[in-house]
Amino acid sequence: MHHSTVDPERLARQGFPEVVYCQSKTAEQVTDNLRALAAANGRAFGTRLPADLAEAVLAALPDAVYEPLGRTISLGAMPPENARAIAIVTAGTSDLPIAEEAAATLAFLGHPVLRFNDIGVAGIHRLHARIDEIRNASVVIVVAGMEGALPSVIGGLVAAPLIAVPTSVGYGAAFEGLAALLGMLNSCAAGLTVVNIDNGFGAAMAAHRILHSTHTSP
Amino acid sequence: MHHSTVDPERLARQGFPEVVYCQSKTAEQVTDNLRALAAANGRAFGTRLPADLAEAVLAALPDAVYEPLGRTISLGAMPPENARAIAIVTAGTSDLPIAEEAAATLAFLGHPVLRFNDIGVAGIHRLHARIDEIRNASVVIVVAGMEGALPSVIGGLVAAPLIAVPTSVGYGAAFEGLAALLGMLNSCAAGLTVVNIDNGFGAAMAAHRILHSTHTSP
Amino acid sequence: MHHSTVDPERLARQGFPEVVYCQSKTAEQVTDNLRALAAANGRAFGTRLPADLAEAVLAALPDAVYEPLGRTISLGAMPPENARAIAIVTAGTSDLPIAEEAAATLAFLGHPVLRFNDIGVAGIHRLHARIDEIRNASVVIVVAGMEGALPSVIGGLVAAPLIAVPTSVGYGAAFEGLAALLGMLNSCAAGLTVVNIDNGFGAAMAAHRILHSTHTSP
Amino acid sequence: MHHSTVDPERLARQGFPEVVYCQSKTAEQVTDNLRALAAANGRAFGTRLPADLAEAVLAALPDAVYEPLGRTISLGAMPPENARAIAIVTAGTSDLPIAEEAAATLAFLGHPVLRFNDIGVAGIHRLHARIDEIRNASVVIVVAGMEGALPSVIGGLVAAPLIAVPTSVGYGAAFEGLAALLGMLNSCAAGLTVVNIDNGFGAAMAAHRILHSTHTSP
Amino acid sequence: MHHSTVDPERLARQGFPEVVYCQSKTAEQVTDNLRALAAANGRAFGTRLPADLAEAVLAALPDAVYEPLGRTISLGAMPPENARAIAIVTAGTSDLPIAEEAAATLAFLGHPVLRFNDIGVAGIHRLHARIDEIRNASVVIVVAGMEGALPSVIGGLVAAPLIAVPTSVGYGAAFEGLAALLGMLNSCAAGLTVVNIDNGFGAAMAAHRILHSTHTSP
Amino acid sequence: MHHSTVDPERLARQGFPEVVYCQSKTAEQVTDNLRALAAANGRAFGTRLPADLAEAVLAALPDAVYEPLGRTISLGAMPPENARAIAIVTAGTSDLPIAEEAAATLAFLGHPVLRFNDIGVAGIHRLHARIDEIRNASVVIVVAGMEGALPSVIGGLVAAPLIAVPTSVGYGAAFEGLAALLGMLNSCAAGLTVVNIDNGFGAAMAAHRILHSTHTSP
Amino acid sequence: MHHSTVDPERLARQGFPEVVYCQSKTAEQVTDNLRALAAANGRAFGTRLPADLAEAVLAALPDAVYEPLGRTISLGAMPPENARAIAIVTAGTSDLPIAEEAAATLAFLGHPVLRFNDIGVAGIHRLHARIDEIRNASVVIVVAGMEGALPSVIGGLVAAPLIAVPTSVGYGAAFEGLAALLGMLNSCAAGLTVVNIDNGFGAAMAAHRILHSTHTSP
Amino acid sequence: MHHSTVDPERLARQGFPEVVYCQSKTAEQVTDNLRALAAANGRAFGTRLPADLAEAVLAALPDAVYEPLGRTISLGAMPPENARAIAIVTAGTSDLPIAEEAAATLAFLGHPVLRFNDIGVAGIHRLHARIDEIRNASVVIVVAGMEGALPSVIGGLVAAPLIAVPTSVGYGAAFEGLAALLGMLNSCAAGLTVVNIDNGFGAAMAAHRILHSTHTSP
Repeated sequence: MHHSTVDPERLARQGFPEVVYCQSKTAEQVTDNLRALAAANGRAFGTRLPADLAEAVLAALPDAVYEPLGRTISLGAMPPENARAIAIVTAGTSDLPIAEEAAATLAFLGHPVLRFNDIGVAGIHRLHARIDEIRNASVVIVVAGMEGALPSVIGGLVAAPLIAVPTSVGYGAAFEGLAALLGMLNSCAAGLTVVNIDNGFGAAMAAHRILHSTHTSP
Repeated sequence: MHHSTVDPERLARQGFPEVVYCQSKTAEQVTDNLRALAAANGRAFGTRLPADLAEAVLAALPDAVYEPLGRTISLGAMPPENARAIAIVTAGTSDLPIAEEAAATLAFLGHPVLRFNDIGVAGIHRLHARIDEIRNASVVIVVAGMEGALPSVIGGLVAAPLIAVPTSVGYGAAFEGLAALLGMLNSCAAGLTVVNIDNGFGAAMAAHRILHSTHTSP
Repeated sequence: MHHSTVDPERLARQGFPEVVYCQSKTAEQVTDNLRALAAANGRAFGTRLPADLAEAVLAALPDAVYEPLGRTISLGAMPPENARAIAIVTAGTSDLPIAEEAAATLAFLGHPVLRFNDIGVAGIHRLHARIDEIRNASVVIVVAGMEGALPSVIGGLVAAPLIAVPTSVGYGAAFEGLAALLGMLNSCAAGLTVVNIDNGFGAAMAAHRILHSTHTSP
Repeated sequence: MHHSTVDPERLARQGFPEVVYCQSKTAEQVTDNLRALAAANGRAFGTRLPADLAEAVLAALPDAVYEPLGRTISLGAMPPENARAIAIVTAGTSDLPIAEEAAATLAFLGHPVLRFNDIGVAGIHRLHARIDEIRNASVVIVVAGMEGALPSVIGGLVAAPLIAVPTSVGYGAAFEGLAALLGMLNSCAAGLTVVNIDNGFGAAMAAHRILHSTHTSP
Repeated sequence: MHHSTVDPERLARQGFPEVVYCQSKTAEQVTDNLRALAAANGRAFGTRLPADLAEAVLAALPDAVYEPLGRTISLGAMPPENARAIAIVTAGTSDLPIAEEAAATLAFLGHPVLRFNDIGVAGIHRLHARIDEIRNASVVIVVAGMEGALPSVIGGLVAAPLIAVPTSVGYGAAFEGLAALLGMLNSCAAGLTVVNIDNGFGAAMAAHRILHSTHTSP
Repeated sequence: MHHSTVDPERLARQGFPEVVYCQSKTAEQVTDNLRALAAANGRAFGTRLPADLAEAVLAALPDAVYEPLGRTISLGAMPPENARAIAIVTAGTSDLPIAEEAAATLAFLGHPVLRFNDIGVAGIHRLHARIDEIRNASVVIVVAGMEGALPSVIGGLVAAPLIAVPTSVGYGAAFEGLAALLGMLNSCAAGLTVVNIDNGFGAAMAAHRILHSTHTSP
Repeated sequence: MHHSTVDPERLARQGFPEVVYCQSKTAEQVTDNLRALAAANGRAFGTRLPADLAEAVLAALPDAVYEPLGRTISLGAMPPENARAIAIVTAGTSDLPIAEEAAATLAFLGHPVLRFNDIGVAGIHRLHARIDEIRNASVVIVVAGMEGALPSVIGGLVAAPLIAVPTSVGYGAAFEGLAALLGMLNSCAAGLTVVNIDNGFGAAMAAHRILHSTHTSP
Repeated sequence: MHHSTVDPERLARQGFPEVVYCQSKTAEQVTDNLRALAAANGRAFGTRLPADLAEAVLAALPDAVYEPLGRTISLGAMPPENARAIAIVTAGTSDLPIAEEAAATLAFLGHPVLRFNDIGVAGIHRLHARIDEIRNASVVIVVAGMEGALPSVIGGLVAAPLIAVPTSVGYGAAFEGLAALLGMLNSCAAGLTVVNIDNGFGAAMAAHRILHSTHTSP
């Protein structure tokens, strides 16, 4: 019995290559999958790779690059960067690991990233100071835990597509990101969309769909 | 068996007279209770009085005043107004009934009210245009449904006590006010407090405790 | 006290004009708001307008057009259509009202719509028969209740941005759309995004952000 | 006080012998129970045996066989295989431990198993490539986490009994398998049934009830 | 735009013809669908048809038969009955509507039904008095609300496949069937399977898959 | 600041002495409290004492007795036993720790206990074999996890007061005892009462209230 | 098919006769059941009988007595009263219907009742004024909605068995009685027990088990 | 990329300086932040600092003071104390860590604190013995887990502002503080407000807003 069914045509079908979700895999499985994908696509990428597992994978794949904060791994040459940038905004310092996961995924897909950290709504002047820069982005990804209010405010200030990422940051009645998730789904700013809790990878992929598709569709 | 146990000393003990919660009472019970409290305290007040029930109560108590939006009823002369005002801010028009319940309760307790309607975070400029007026208030009550983000933003802009009231406005994953409630409890702005969903009365009472107590304590 | 704070600069700021959410408003409030927005922007649009209220609004605004299935109302000339179309896919016939809300919103914003109805995953051949047409769309909106599996399957077959709309269709453990919402948030297809339960309007707005922004950003 | 009440007639009453649930038992309790059941029935089986406990049990029962992925243990000769096979399908590699628990249980009960791994709906072509093989099975067990959409698609393609097993694979709003469970309970494909989260053992037992009963009932 | 996408090959693919879910359809839609399916398959069947809608449908289809308790409608000649019977057991009288939905569905598919009503676990002697009859069935469907304990007890007494149907019967902490659903999913009797709350139709379909498939598979 | 406010008159007021809940206390706090209560009442009792903490407490109080399964500790001479016994019934072996907590608490209060282990509803004959003995008890405590069905069955067979204790035994949709708790609250057997999840101590106290009070009230 | 399975030996087995739960029954079913039980036991009792249904039942059974507040119906001569009384305490006036259901059930079973209404914890002096009377009761039933705190306070003041009944009184985050239910299950007063939300009948039955059993057991 | 965006004007804007939330930060980040804030404001404060991290921070900042129970750290001279005191009341000993967090925060802000420990409602006499002292406070903070009833009782006895802090103390159906949170939100005592579970810091900040604002507003 083999453990995985590879999907070599995903790039043609979906516009992006398969990515390895490393959470419940062994070092061998991660290594095998990265190698196979790099052989097929020229480069490979993995998410949710714990630090202890990363050591074993890097021993087998010394050319791979591991980002410990976002827990991503990449192998092979990154693509040349596109012209249009994506903004990644975090509400607080604790949201950084999820933002890093998104940023590394976008780098793997060739998208330049603008970073705006720790500008949550409790000090709204921090956001106003940077909003013009944020407006330069083609897509805005907003990462926030606790009450998850930042996407609503930014959504009212920019016209670009906005992808909200709730994080499990917070305690008590945050219920592991549920409060932020519900907040974002009920945003009073029209036209926001939401991904799963802590899913920086998914937000990056959604941004890629937007930029990739609008470049290439007739 | 009598249906209620009156509490004539509540004013002395808690600083405010007993109030009639009318939701599941008959017109006779509401009328009796209002009359008894007006006899004891000079005036009486009731909340959550449905419009159809109000008609019957007003027939029996022609001097009473019914506010249909906030569904409150008051009987007897209102007290002279205090010097310090309380701001009531709503995120959207749909939050008005709860704001009205709070306003009528405060009027009954002698507090002047400043109103700021429909200035939710999706259009943050509407809030900035009025923030200096809000800063003039001694206490700020913020009423919001959907994601409930407005208290977080205001909480970062004012030093006054801020009481957040989640409302059941919204649909789908708002879950009858749960999203706003969780959002407010997890606010990244420090020192906010929260009352029950749609509890405009409770927010007014909390504001009264603040102003009453700080006036009279040594 | 006035009941609303208008936002005439939303078009400049966010790329779309203000829209009237009619659910808890009176006929007078809806009529006033539509008139004011049409005066400012040349046309106006409202969502969640119940049939009985619509009658009163149409009496006051005889030029307005009401769509009873999607419960939307529009006033004024619709804009010329853009070149790029948006696909709206439903899993079942019961999802149509939400799809209609999305379609009417897109029409108001000038986007041509392709419709694919009742092609849920229980009969996957229905989807395969139409997938090439769906691939022609610049953005895909997928509306589904019950288990909400259709976005996952389509997400694996198209490269375009995909916005998933959970509906409250289903009974028992569907919990008013919660099952579909959780299913879509946990989709194994990468890069999907999700809006609130029954939020056809929000999905249309998100699609508009994608097409509007990629047209006009540098 | 003795710790267990044995049930030697379960085979006659229910068509299968008692099985040891090892999760919260000591190595001594597991060993005793397996020995007693093997003495009564010729063979014995245990589920949810952690790897560290397994070592101690194997020291006492050197003939027992431990499967570390599915965490099952069996003792005694397995029965001859029946003619009709059961398909076990997984959506992803992370669902394998639960599929292994089901497979080992079926082996213990004498049922041949066909395995189909990692063919989730995000790449629907993987499923189509194997659907004819799946149609050969008398019963189909589908194991899936995340949104749990795979049973709906397969349920629309096969006529056999289909038992869906939600797994706790996923993060954030997967809520430890709740999303997959609700998805499967609300499947738009008619006639699916569902077992508890991560309950590979229960699915196997349900398959056994189907094949055993239809073999032997008049 | 047509409202439905018919699926004429479902009988060949899944072993049963398409069935009309009438809940949110108009009388015209129900009538059209029943007529089209009867033309294709010789007979047609609908579930969740409210009494008021049924009147209009029966006016258009005078040969159709409506069962008010289970809210089902059937059109055309029922098939000859199979040899093997299915037991439908209810815990209480209030569970009858769901049991009726299951029974009418099974009649439509040609399966004889044995009925056992109001034999819940609070009076276990009522179950013991009838258990030998229940053991004669090829498949057992157990319908129960409140704590949903009946399937566990029967599951320990019979070897046949057992499908548990939680109902929304109960109040307070029954939470509309959630208590019964969780109870059945956690049954200590091995090999039970569960369908959605109040889903008598789904249970009947699952029973049909079992009997149909084991008759016809090689 | 002292850490506790002792309550020496609880015995007079409530019929039982204060008991130490050891979960989040230090060894010193537990030791101090036990000593103080033993000095006041002649004996003392503590619950939820982890094994590692118990060692330190026993070093300081060598006459104390620790029961590792139920995690209770007692100090001083136990009272003479009452005439009337209390039955403690468990559904499965995994429920034993909670049953032990109840048993040790009852011993501390002078009540003889009858034990019935591992007689859950999946093998109902095990219960029938012992029901006459259970009927001899003055009060019946039933401890069960998973679906928590055992109290319903016993409640239909005995006339004595029955206290149901849900346990956190089970996995997946057991949700840490929630399934059993809801099942017991919705029992179809009339007159059962329920305590918190895993609260063997509370069940014993409730039984004590019953026997103590009916002995001594006029 | 008959709709119910009667249980004539319940009195012998459980110490109380069968009672009719009228909620989802027709007037004919209620009438039949009451008549049959009165014929068997000399008297009969029904709960949750809506006012409109009651009219039809009383037309058929003119000797029956209907209590509209508690929605109970009784038929036949009530038994002579026992010597020992049961206290029923309510936190607020809105809890009365549930208290009435309990009181009527106890009357049917021959137990004298002491009533204490509207003495919730917000005015603790009301409770202190009556606590000595409450201490005279053999069993105390406490009925409370909202936060459900009253049982905790009374539980610390009396030694008698205390049965807590959460009610669905309250709004917003009361979640239809969930807040009160959780509060009572987590009471810091030892030895309380809890029944389902709004289950006045169940509390009365539990009290009956206590008094009946302790009278008659050896 | 720098990890934080400092907010030096928070003192002017909100009446209190920025505070470091240490939970998910490194020792270096905590140290840097404390140093920067002490440089700006003369003193600095951090919450949720785990004991192991505190050691490293204290090595770098030997003048800082760490409170292990409440897990707070402070640096710099504390301000002179205000005239008006704040009462902190706990229901049980296990609530002390949260009370300590509140007390340390208040000390940092210059407010004298009165402590009342372990006076929960199960022994209401303990509360009555101290209520006159509590009435001397300008603001009352009540910290309670389990059913969270203490704020309701105190709220009925004092006129001062009352801030309720639910704690995660309790087990089973306490659901990590949810029971206490819901209880406090539904308090029958008017005018209480609530903060997040275990949020002693937030309660202190809310008290500071009350005292600060009423001192300085016109």
